[in-house]
Amino acid sequence: MTNNQPLAPLWTQWREQVDQRLEILLPASDCEPCELHQAMRYASIGAGKRYRAALVYASGRALGTDERALDIPACALELIHAFSLIHDDLPAMDDDDLRRGKPSCHRAFNEATAILAGDALQTLAFEALCTYSATGLPPARQLQMVQILAHAAGSLGLAGGQAIDLDLVACDAPVDTLATMHRKKTGALIEAAVQLGALTATGDPVVLQQLAGYARPLGLAFQVVDDILDGTADTATLGKLAGADRLKGKPTFLSALGESASRHYAQALGDEAIAALEHAPFNSTLLIALVRFTIERSH
Amino acid sequence: MTNNQPLAPLWTQWREQVDQRLEILLPASDCEPCELHQAMRYASIGAGKRYRAALVYASGRALGTDERALDIPACALELIHAFSLIHDDLPAMDDDDLRRGKPSCHRAFNEATAILAGDALQTLAFEALCTYSATGLPPARQLQMVQILAHAAGSLGLAGGQAIDLDLVACDAPVDTLATMHRKKTGALIEAAVQLGALTATGDPVVLQQLAGYARPLGLAFQVVDDILDGTADTATLGKLAGADRLKGKPTFLSALGESASRHYAQALGDEAIAALEHAPFNSTLLIALVRFTIERSH
Repeated sequence: MTNNQPLAPLWTQWREQVDQRLEILLPASDCEPCELHQAMRYASIGAGKRYRAALVYASGRALGTDERALDIPACALELIHAFSLIHDDLPAMDDDDLRRGKPSCHRAFNEATAILAGDALQTLAFEALCTYSATGLPPARQLQMVQILAHAAGSLGLAGGQAIDLDLVACDAPVDTLATMHRKKTGALIEAAVQLGALTATGDPVVLQQLAGYARPLGLAFQVVDDILDGTADTATLGKLAGADRLKGKPTFLSALGESASRHYAQALGDEAIAALEHAPFNSTLLIALVRFTIERSH
Repeated sequence: MTNNQPLAPLWTQWREQVDQRLEILLPASDCEPCELHQAMRYASIGAGKRYRAALVYASGRALGTDERALDIPACALELIHAFSLIHDDLPAMDDDDLRRGKPSCHRAFNEATAILAGDALQTLAFEALCTYSATGLPPARQLQMVQILAHAAGSLGLAGGQAIDLDLVACDAPVDTLATMHRKKTGALIEAAVQLGALTATGDPVVLQQLAGYARPLGLAFQVVDDILDGTADTATLGKLAGADRLKGKPTFLSALGESASRHYAQALGDEAIAALEHAPFNSTLLIALVRFTIERSH
């Protein structure tokens, strides 16, 4: 049973699949307007953990979807993620010069191109989901996928979380506020990834609900670990400036709880995610392995 | 026959319908994050010609769709348009302080909020189209609407056109280059508006093709008139800074052709749009009236 394969080699394969599919989905570098397409490709192909893609693959495989049929939803998640990183890095936002081990998009190109590249990557995610017909999915299910992804990216999800985050600079936010902010900023897309993977196989609300119970604490655990790594790992390992949160006076789980309590918190959230899969009517091996990766990752 | 009503009172009614529906679609001003939702509402409700919405209504009515069933696609077009105006006005792009007779979004709020408000308005357009079930449309048709709108907004449409436009500053672009740029920047959304209106009634490729033949010259005519107005009308009438193109050294149809030839060009494009509707198997009265408005408008 392929679901009992160890996670690491599968993940490597998923990363390759995502890059291969993005190569096709994105207009070529010499397609007009060339600089815009170069910027879109620069910011989305060949880098990144592909964590959100991995969640799509793991969730879809758990429910029996063929691997290749998961490429498009996995890419849609990564396109939205890439778009959000480009815009978050802009001078008017987090003003970050380094991303995924190379200059951020507006540093490698320019601000206007970076704004437009982000805009167009977002659009492309929705366009890709519409033309997705690999599994012979009913159109109503595809529409549900677009709707979930659009909602997750919008003002009540990702964009809203980033707006709250910008407001939190230099204040002592309680852990509850941080959790609410990250539930939107990071969690919404992680929850959407798990839902989209599942929707390639089923529209059963019971299964979708159980997976939401898994994805919600997992998303928060991911962010808690992100905060720990920002304060404890080095820039080369992270591929972005280490300690950036502290430098900007941003409240984090690390600053609010300290390292030890943060690690315990992440562990407890991971346990909650795994517990949500108990008695699942599907093979949840990969989803559980992803929880372990989330807690133990070093970048 | 309602399609023989004069355009002006209908258009007033359409504007009200769009605003009423946007009031519901957009999260309330006191919904967290409040400033983001205020910025989204500021930039999208209660202002603008609603030209793209009018095209949706006129096209849908021509094919017999009930008025109320056109509100959501009309709003989706206006949400994408509002998003693109917010981002176009940013300091890194066109750096415009005035829009629709009031401070542009980043002036009324701040740059970060404006970027996020644009992002979230784009997302909302797609989300709205997914949840749109007023007419009992087949989901496959809805998916086609999302796909057309996403493509029109993306790097081969609106975003691509804006990228080309930014590159054209201070050069003597030939009329062909201007037409190519505007075909993407303005035309793509105008073409999408007509297609979405039609798709509420039919998926017949012959009808959609005939309407594309109408929308393509119409979109270009709209932009030619825009260029003429920018150079000849005053700021109060336009609701944005008059003469902005000349001040920025942007090539326009007016600068390339002069006023008289530009007016003739707009008229010829309008004639081409009307000719495309000949022998149409539907009542094209409103669509023809829209061509006249496009050529004769004063703002």
